[in-house]
Amino acid sequence: MPSRPDADDPRLGDISEGRILQAILSRTVQGTHTLLGPGDDAAVIATPSGSVVATTDTLVHGPDFRLAWSSGYDLGWKAAAVNLADVAAMGARPTALLVALAVPRDLRLSFVEQLADGFREACAALAPGCAVVGGDLTVSDVLTVAVTALGDLEGRAPVTRSGARPGDVVAVAGELGHAAHGLAVLFGRFREDGVPVPVDPSKLATGERAALSAQLRPSPPIGLGAVAAFTGATAMMDVSDGLALDARRMAAASGVTIALDGAALGDDPERAIAGGEDHALLATFPEGLLPPGFRIIGEVRSAGDEDLLCDDRPVDVSGWDPYRDWDSVSG
Amino acid sequence: MPSRPDADDPRLGDISEGRILQAILSRTVQGTHTLLGPGDDAAVIATPSGSVVATTDTLVHGPDFRLAWSSGYDLGWKAAAVNLADVAAMGARPTALLVALAVPRDLRLSFVEQLADGFREACAALAPGCAVVGGDLTVSDVLTVAVTALGDLEGRAPVTRSGARPGDVVAVAGELGHAAHGLAVLFGRFREDGVPVPVDPSKLATGERAALSAQLRPSPPIGLGAVAAFTGATAMMDVSDGLALDARRMAAASGVTIALDGAALGDDPERAIAGGEDHALLATFPEGLLPPGFRIIGEVRSAGDEDLLCDDRPVDVSGWDPYRDWDSVSG
Repeated sequence: MPSRPDADDPRLGDISEGRILQAILSRTVQGTHTLLGPGDDAAVIATPSGSVVATTDTLVHGPDFRLAWSSGYDLGWKAAAVNLADVAAMGARPTALLVALAVPRDLRLSFVEQLADGFREACAALAPGCAVVGGDLTVSDVLTVAVTALGDLEGRAPVTRSGARPGDVVAVAGELGHAAHGLAVLFGRFREDGVPVPVDPSKLATGERAALSAQLRPSPPIGLGAVAAFTGATAMMDVSDGLALDARRMAAASGVTIALDGAALGDDPERAIAGGEDHALLATFPEGLLPPGFRIIGEVRSAGDEDLLCDDRPVDVSGWDPYRDWDSVSG
Repeated sequence: MPSRPDADDPRLGDISEGRILQAILSRTVQGTHTLLGPGDDAAVIATPSGSVVATTDTLVHGPDFRLAWSSGYDLGWKAAAVNLADVAAMGARPTALLVALAVPRDLRLSFVEQLADGFREACAALAPGCAVVGGDLTVSDVLTVAVTALGDLEGRAPVTRSGARPGDVVAVAGELGHAAHGLAVLFGRFREDGVPVPVDPSKLATGERAALSAQLRPSPPIGLGAVAAFTGATAMMDVSDGLALDARRMAAASGVTIALDGAALGDDPERAIAGGEDHALLATFPEGLLPPGFRIIGEVRSAGDEDLLCDDRPVDVSGWDPYRDWDSVSG
């Protein structure tokens, strides 16, 4: 996005909360499930099937994103996408987002405007009809975007992590390892003395552009969550911390062993197994029930010594843990 | 709460995310509306009346609380209470909370445990049946508690800010100005060189203890929101930023003038008008319909030159604005 002259793009600390909110709300559309939108103490969202799915996930400047690499638009898009994926992973259709924004006073208004654009367009692309219905704006030294996503099961039972049964196939919809590839490109090529610097697109090969996009603006297959539930998925979750860690969680919750087929994991199975943040949908189905959009990557076996196998060998990679893995640099 | 020896109370950065989550979840109870609680990608909450009320509000270390003054218990309690009040202000009954926690690595485990206790006990005291159904834990240099509250209208229409009509009475349930009194005590007496220091209870007079409690662990009359809606409230909101600012918002949304009666505002009408954070319920009712728990503090008139009057004079105080009013000290 072209940057505006500073005089036309004030720092948030120099303008009123009302002006910031007005800029955000003018970029927000009405969702199809919204009975009462922003502007009151709370929003009201339709839940025709008698229950609501609810999840929350936060992006914090530093461990979760760097401003040298992510625009406001990227950040809004990603904050929407990761929360929509959690709703989809229950087998629900996303209906509404609430956005709690804590912003430093020296941030520019244009950043928040782009953020609102990113939220709106991620919803339009990934979960049509879903929209931001409410939020909160406060000041903080650390830019923080806490999102809650709501969804409707449309009469279906929720698909939990604990329903995988021996004999089921293990399948995935969406990418595995692309977001991690993008992160590796960013960490490997766009830092100077350890500090993130802006991406120079001319230095990217084609596959790297796609990987960067997967990292900065992920597009999980949100609509396939409801399809999987409708088809009869026995367990489902989104892959946020890496296939190794998340498949292990599903195996433990279900009391089974998940056995992956390395040949089904693409060109770089190691990255596909270890890399997080793609938010693909990992699901198990009774044999013969695979819906379009899902591909088989393994099978469910009775519980053995290991929760997770790949090509019949134990898997010893783990996923991303901000307590252990964040290098404390923000940038 | 007695503090534990440090060896038994690790810093969050020295233990696993799993251990922190386990400590939180062991302090969380099942809500009566919870169909699926914590532990999966999302929770599922019953919405028997076909819609859900949703709101989000964040407390940030610095502008919203100081660790010298607020225990983890206080912080959890207050984060619950301010969000429950927004649900109540729509005329709904709170059913569920989601808590997104961003915590510094040097915070002690006991703080997070107390936080979970505060959430649980605030729900039990203020909104029985409501419980924390999900959350998110991430790392940040600034302790941030972003809460989303959900509620059920039980078949009633939501009570917005825009329904006040000339001839209605203006009424309030809950305290006005007590939380601001508490804040004044903290700022006036428990800082050294501008930096917050712990409260010494022996230095507090009786009224000051109550004021401090109103500031640190507010107890808004959550259950009266549904009562007001049932009785026929025409408009309602919670008083979070001060009666002056919030009554003005209601007047503007409704296209009316709100005329307050200074004599009805207690011993310190100025503080009652200016002071925020009590989260009292401000509502308008057709004359003759006042429910128990509410007291009349004014009347609704046709729109005049001023949105807000007190004793027929313009009111020139405004409320709390973190962009303007926070002194940048955390403590």
